[in-house]
Amino acid sequence: MNSTDQPTQADGNAAPQTSTTNSQWGGRFSESTDEFVQAFTASVQFDQRMYRQDIAGSRAHATMLARIGVLSEEDLAAIIGGLDAIETDIAEGNFTWSIALEDVHMNIEAALTARIGDAGKRLHTGRSRNDQVATDIRLYMRDACDASAGECTRLLEGLLTLAQKHTATIMPGFTHLQTAQPVTFGHHVMAWFEMLLRDLERLGDTRRRLNRMPLGAAALAGTSYPIDREVTRELLQFDAVCENSLDAVSDRDFAIEFCSNTAICLMHLSRIAEELVLWMSAQFRFIDLPDRFCTGSSIMPQKKNPDVPELVRGKTGRAYGNLMSLLTLMKSQPLAYNKDNQEDKEPLFDSVDTLLGCLRAFADMLPAIQVREDSMRAAARDGFSTATDLADYLVRKGLAFRDAHEVVGSAVAHGVQHSLDLADMSLEVLQGFDERIEADVFDVLTLEGSVNARRHIGGTAPEAVSGAIERARTRLLSAYMPN
Amino acid sequence: MNSTDQPTQADGNAAPQTSTTNSQWGGRFSESTDEFVQAFTASVQFDQRMYRQDIAGSRAHATMLARIGVLSEEDLAAIIGGLDAIETDIAEGNFTWSIALEDVHMNIEAALTARIGDAGKRLHTGRSRNDQVATDIRLYMRDACDASAGECTRLLEGLLTLAQKHTATIMPGFTHLQTAQPVTFGHHVMAWFEMLLRDLERLGDTRRRLNRMPLGAAALAGTSYPIDREVTRELLQFDAVCENSLDAVSDRDFAIEFCSNTAICLMHLSRIAEELVLWMSAQFRFIDLPDRFCTGSSIMPQKKNPDVPELVRGKTGRAYGNLMSLLTLMKSQPLAYNKDNQEDKEPLFDSVDTLLGCLRAFADMLPAIQVREDSMRAAARDGFSTATDLADYLVRKGLAFRDAHEVVGSAVAHGVQHSLDLADMSLEVLQGFDERIEADVFDVLTLEGSVNARRHIGGTAPEAVSGAIERARTRLLSAYMPN
Amino acid sequence: MNSTDQPTQADGNAAPQTSTTNSQWGGRFSESTDEFVQAFTASVQFDQRMYRQDIAGSRAHATMLARIGVLSEEDLAAIIGGLDAIETDIAEGNFTWSIALEDVHMNIEAALTARIGDAGKRLHTGRSRNDQVATDIRLYMRDACDASAGECTRLLEGLLTLAQKHTATIMPGFTHLQTAQPVTFGHHVMAWFEMLLRDLERLGDTRRRLNRMPLGAAALAGTSYPIDREVTRELLQFDAVCENSLDAVSDRDFAIEFCSNTAICLMHLSRIAEELVLWMSAQFRFIDLPDRFCTGSSIMPQKKNPDVPELVRGKTGRAYGNLMSLLTLMKSQPLAYNKDNQEDKEPLFDSVDTLLGCLRAFADMLPAIQVREDSMRAAARDGFSTATDLADYLVRKGLAFRDAHEVVGSAVAHGVQHSLDLADMSLEVLQGFDERIEADVFDVLTLEGSVNARRHIGGTAPEAVSGAIERARTRLLSAYMPN
Amino acid sequence: MNSTDQPTQADGNAAPQTSTTNSQWGGRFSESTDEFVQAFTASVQFDQRMYRQDIAGSRAHATMLARIGVLSEEDLAAIIGGLDAIETDIAEGNFTWSIALEDVHMNIEAALTARIGDAGKRLHTGRSRNDQVATDIRLYMRDACDASAGECTRLLEGLLTLAQKHTATIMPGFTHLQTAQPVTFGHHVMAWFEMLLRDLERLGDTRRRLNRMPLGAAALAGTSYPIDREVTRELLQFDAVCENSLDAVSDRDFAIEFCSNTAICLMHLSRIAEELVLWMSAQFRFIDLPDRFCTGSSIMPQKKNPDVPELVRGKTGRAYGNLMSLLTLMKSQPLAYNKDNQEDKEPLFDSVDTLLGCLRAFADMLPAIQVREDSMRAAARDGFSTATDLADYLVRKGLAFRDAHEVVGSAVAHGVQHSLDLADMSLEVLQGFDERIEADVFDVLTLEGSVNARRHIGGTAPEAVSGAIERARTRLLSAYMPN
Repeated sequence: MNSTDQPTQADGNAAPQTSTTNSQWGGRFSESTDEFVQAFTASVQFDQRMYRQDIAGSRAHATMLARIGVLSEEDLAAIIGGLDAIETDIAEGNFTWSIALEDVHMNIEAALTARIGDAGKRLHTGRSRNDQVATDIRLYMRDACDASAGECTRLLEGLLTLAQKHTATIMPGFTHLQTAQPVTFGHHVMAWFEMLLRDLERLGDTRRRLNRMPLGAAALAGTSYPIDREVTRELLQFDAVCENSLDAVSDRDFAIEFCSNTAICLMHLSRIAEELVLWMSAQFRFIDLPDRFCTGSSIMPQKKNPDVPELVRGKTGRAYGNLMSLLTLMKSQPLAYNKDNQEDKEPLFDSVDTLLGCLRAFADMLPAIQVREDSMRAAARDGFSTATDLADYLVRKGLAFRDAHEVVGSAVAHGVQHSLDLADMSLEVLQGFDERIEADVFDVLTLEGSVNARRHIGGTAPEAVSGAIERARTRLLSAYMPN
Repeated sequence: MNSTDQPTQADGNAAPQTSTTNSQWGGRFSESTDEFVQAFTASVQFDQRMYRQDIAGSRAHATMLARIGVLSEEDLAAIIGGLDAIETDIAEGNFTWSIALEDVHMNIEAALTARIGDAGKRLHTGRSRNDQVATDIRLYMRDACDASAGECTRLLEGLLTLAQKHTATIMPGFTHLQTAQPVTFGHHVMAWFEMLLRDLERLGDTRRRLNRMPLGAAALAGTSYPIDREVTRELLQFDAVCENSLDAVSDRDFAIEFCSNTAICLMHLSRIAEELVLWMSAQFRFIDLPDRFCTGSSIMPQKKNPDVPELVRGKTGRAYGNLMSLLTLMKSQPLAYNKDNQEDKEPLFDSVDTLLGCLRAFADMLPAIQVREDSMRAAARDGFSTATDLADYLVRKGLAFRDAHEVVGSAVAHGVQHSLDLADMSLEVLQGFDERIEADVFDVLTLEGSVNARRHIGGTAPEAVSGAIERARTRLLSAYMPN
Repeated sequence: MNSTDQPTQADGNAAPQTSTTNSQWGGRFSESTDEFVQAFTASVQFDQRMYRQDIAGSRAHATMLARIGVLSEEDLAAIIGGLDAIETDIAEGNFTWSIALEDVHMNIEAALTARIGDAGKRLHTGRSRNDQVATDIRLYMRDACDASAGECTRLLEGLLTLAQKHTATIMPGFTHLQTAQPVTFGHHVMAWFEMLLRDLERLGDTRRRLNRMPLGAAALAGTSYPIDREVTRELLQFDAVCENSLDAVSDRDFAIEFCSNTAICLMHLSRIAEELVLWMSAQFRFIDLPDRFCTGSSIMPQKKNPDVPELVRGKTGRAYGNLMSLLTLMKSQPLAYNKDNQEDKEPLFDSVDTLLGCLRAFADMLPAIQVREDSMRAAARDGFSTATDLADYLVRKGLAFRDAHEVVGSAVAHGVQHSLDLADMSLEVLQGFDERIEADVFDVLTLEGSVNARRHIGGTAPEAVSGAIERARTRLLSAYMPN
Repeated sequence: MNSTDQPTQADGNAAPQTSTTNSQWGGRFSESTDEFVQAFTASVQFDQRMYRQDIAGSRAHATMLARIGVLSEEDLAAIIGGLDAIETDIAEGNFTWSIALEDVHMNIEAALTARIGDAGKRLHTGRSRNDQVATDIRLYMRDACDASAGECTRLLEGLLTLAQKHTATIMPGFTHLQTAQPVTFGHHVMAWFEMLLRDLERLGDTRRRLNRMPLGAAALAGTSYPIDREVTRELLQFDAVCENSLDAVSDRDFAIEFCSNTAICLMHLSRIAEELVLWMSAQFRFIDLPDRFCTGSSIMPQKKNPDVPELVRGKTGRAYGNLMSLLTLMKSQPLAYNKDNQEDKEPLFDSVDTLLGCLRAFADMLPAIQVREDSMRAAARDGFSTATDLADYLVRKGLAFRDAHEVVGSAVAHGVQHSLDLADMSLEVLQGFDERIEADVFDVLTLEGSVNARRHIGGTAPEAVSGAIERARTRLLSAYMPN
């Protein structure tokens, strides 16, 4: 906004410059707005991105006004024609935005009046900038939800494809970043799927909640014109009208909800990103990323840096920050509209861009990761990953779980001391820890044995993962928009 | 947690004390945990509040284990009996929680084994603390959602009653805290209703999303026992099982979602609180609060302070902070469970307490506010609140809205100069601004005229508000659980 | 950044476009960066605002390289000449920034090499973009601190002038927004002064801490060239060099510290803003703001909205959000530089702009507020504001404070019931509450009596305020830069 | 606070219970406070931890009142004796805190009056709970700063010892978690030292800023008693008095500043923790942690989890959350004291506990980490970590840096293809990339060669690190208190 490109020492003596243009609010004011103040309080720099929504709203409003006889058909035709032309001008870059006209609404209205004369002045009948901007934002956010849901769905589909390829690829499962138990890579990918599917569900909830029309609330109390909100609602494809005019112009909870969804989704992406960065390291070497998602170094010629995952992880910061901005903004504001609310747009738009960009980057990147199956398998074999299987084996032989846990602990201690995995110990050695151990123990100590044994719903066995993928395809169909 | 009641200068020379109790994880460790570390890493101080959920989960798990033949019926009976007795002990305050036993799970399991012997050691078969704690939290949060929804519903019902009483009470509607247009107090209350109804809807969404069962995920990969998760699910009344074991033990997005809902709801309550505080001031005098929601001063004998609204406004801080805590906590955590997650509980529980407490306080207080109708009406009469009505009148007489706005601006400027409201000017004076003004103008310049004219859906007219209240009663029925 | 002006439905089938330009990191890569990825990961859109700092750093680095014999004098002259020309081009808008060249550093270096040939390629000897960007940011932030301190000082001086005018203007002091005791307006303004003076002190602390030079850290480990960091340090006027290369390139705590200062300062400004908005309301009418800091309404012709205070109050949101962004960004990052850090700039720059803009707006506005002394005085007379004085009077007559408090409580209850202020009760009536009350009581029950009695350091008496203003003038001189 | 241990469905019909105790604010109120409200608004549950500070403040206040003749010497003696006895009772657990008495101040004052009679009632002369609580918090925070600085210093000393042991231990330096260049472990530890030393400096700044005395501000305006604030100030060892009474009782910026410091310090600790967790993994194996800082698993007998680093990393969440809580709390509050401020204590105390606990845990743990020098060295040898050294070598042979970078890039690509490190290639092969390469190249391609070459201030060479450690010892002496 106040784009002080270069911070400079204030010049305390400079007389405030005053603008010469007439402000749009007319005769009440005796003094012109200070130019710095004008720029400081203007929003057109960032709200112009809602021009399509603003024009769509005006079109619907004018149509309704004509329907109830407040506008003539000639005026309506002139307004629609003018708005169409302005929309084209803006889309083609032939529109000059003016700070002096403050915001997207006044810029477009002024252009309309300049173009079609008095009919333009009649457009604002029965509405206010308060319900106008609230309508614009909701229309914009409805589109943003749909676009994000589209990218999220593409990413989820990519994960299903990736998981399908790797239902039987074995890797170490970690807790505390310590090798815990072997899992399949397909199972791991499906954990990502579950996380992001809930993000998609949340987007759908938010879309449903925000798709209600403020128009008709006017400044705060409704209008004395006999407006027919049902007409406008249908033209703009809102599910319902906002039931209370004060609430319609003053609340921004839907924007916070979107930013919260974005924060949670970025949290999930940051976790995936963290794993990708770890797995790309020379120490893990579980995966490789295509070069186009990486960059090199200006000084170290050997570097191949996982830039895209790192950047997405970093963008979690702005997603959290935007949420905090909006929550702070709305705290303690008395009803109805206050100027504070102008500050709602930049964080919200930034969250939209962040969510879309990150989902797109991951949707492009994740299906393209190259899996080093041999490294994964080698890592799974280390670290006593089948120790739990030995304990379970002992329980089946009659030990209480807590006692079996104790026995295996001793075996592991022995293994650590002698650099031996459990599967590498002789039967004799194993029987030294508990005599109930027999030759069949080696079936459960293999990676495949361990993994295949977990074949219940939610388990890591290849067949369980295949089943989960199949169900996931169906669940994905109705996650965003049920029925 | 680490309750350093008195911060004291560190004693760098103190040798670390070591505990003598045997830790529960057996033979792998050669050195005992440092006592400070034990207290620093323990969670029983705050997770003991989930004891009912932990016991319910154990009961269902044991029942399932018996159903699949992993536990004998005798063991099951012993376990159920033991758990019942322990639950009673805890409820009656006859249970000693031990820091050395780390958390609620180990405390209860140790007590069970002490009470019933080896059968207690068999209970942990086929599960892990990772899926156990995830199950406990979800059960706890399901109850917390229901309890919060109950308080929220009570508050909403109170608002409907309050609004009903005041469909025709006139007050100034504010934008920018400047008098804008007259509104009815019932309409204002219904704006609060709309805000909080959406909060209730959000609680319902969250409840649906979290009511899925982690149990069966074990540590991270599922278990090699032939568990039947459907049995446990039904016993615990979960809607579904978590579809992926890694996801089940590692994600806490549902907790963040609850904290986000709480933050948004507290944002709404902070706005209501702000208005109550303003209205209680000597300058507004719109309302009075019953003494029991206020306190006095230790030094100024005349004070009657609106403590409850102020405190609720202040509690917005902790609701926002808890949300940020959990988002931060989860950022960049690789799968699956990490110790970091232990930090999820205190912010979450604090948000539960905050939401419940604030909703309860407002549900008690709001229906009891005393409205000073005369002060409200007097304030509405000031400040040219019907200026928009004059502009609308002029539009109906043929002016373009923007021109009408200009005319009324001049009339207001005249009024400011001569301390005259529009309704107090003579027809002659008014006609000086535009000759189209006639005697019928005074109908629209009264408060009732202004308010009654806004009778469309969402408008402030008494009849519109009555309609809104009626619809609201129906909407409230299905807001939390659409059935 | 990724400026998706219009959110659009993702096109899942689009083949990723690949760029044809050669990236700057040379031969290691076999595949060109995806164009979306290029835009997604580029920073030149926002880091170009540091071009002056980047060029200054390069100038100093080249000078040092020449001093130690790594660059020839001819190369140095060519580099300096080239950089000067580029700086002029950029300042005059004659420079084309390229996304393909990623950031401000590569854009300038490429332009330099294009202009002066091979000498340009030698400039990057012994440094890396990691220490280069860290140096740029610190130089930029040093300027930002100085500029903010300048605006803050101007605001503080304005407050002193305002306070001086109103050392004896009486208004009600509030606690809980209830009338508490009379205070002088000058005293109230000096409370603002104290708050903002601490903000200025904090800026100074931050400036001192960040004015240390990263250059020489190279990528992370230092460089094998025999650099002389003292030469560069002096040229760039840093107080010291960063003592550790890993720390120098990886930490951003100084940026967080600045954002924290900004958040605290905006918190203070939001409190002042809140008071201005309240005081501008028809209910308070304590002040008026010049028209140039207000705006009107597009629909309500009578409105004069305190836009600037409201907007500043709203900007608190972005200040808090930016802080949260940076804290999140840095959480859990392993050393040394990670790509995440690219996300440090936008929140930081936004905080710089916000702080500068808000301080400037308030420095312009606050000295220009018009005080309605009569309204303030009338409000102070209401609400039993001298009740504490009566209690103190009774204590001087021998009652214990707690008993005196009780007596005055009864007198106030009587006053509330009969709509009588304490000063309006007859001596007889007052003596009914405690017989120790005598005629001299009326001296302490007047506003002047109350205010003048609080003449100790920190008290509200006109003479105490005058003394405070005098001391404040001196304190202001050394608040930002001691000595 | 409102400790709803078990969330329960609200009972909408329950009549509000009213307490029978007389509240302390006397005669103004006709209705007793609702019991739920009493508990909801009480603070004694958490502010009792400031009892020592509260008593110290009362002692000083009474002494001053006696000095100016407002209290008799007998009263003073009784008060001091009573306070001493109460302090002992509390310290020994023989004090019953009462919710009905609201806060620590009223609890102690009531106990004092019960014990010594009317003299107790005279103690509150010339002060208010507003300046009393502000004083208590500042005294508490001064102690908290000193205690935290003590632990931080102990941690920093431990780091110096650790670094000293490892000035020549070689490990891979990472950027983007990719091997970048070899560094010494001592150098890495000294990066941690620098980060935490700045945290210590910040603590010192905050201590200086908060060590100013609010006492004397009374409720908001000062007092009509002839108090001598200099006496109290000296007794309580404050550096200065707060210069403005309104500011003294209403601002909490020092608390936010402390929470911001804590957040930044925890951010630093989270980075160290992240590295420790990585390094403990089977993939890195750079270090081992003593068992007492780790825990095992309830299900996986082989696990040794780095619990303490993980938990500290997790506690970053609460540090950030507390900061956001306080910032939110203070946003938009009009002067002076509002009940909202009661919410300042819990987040603040939690930040104190978190900072102290985490610093203590790390001060205990870090000097005890076991370094696997062989693993570190092996890892450094991989990944072309001396590629930059080859580029620098070529520059010294006459290539421009950018061209040298290109040459080395090709050599690395060759190495990747043939699994050969640069140092393992024959001279012939190397000369194939650039004929200027000669036999002396192998000196710069060794780990020692690379590390030793970076011997300027801030570089990673053992001799540079030794010098840094030496300077660090001196800098540490004056970091907190420059004297």
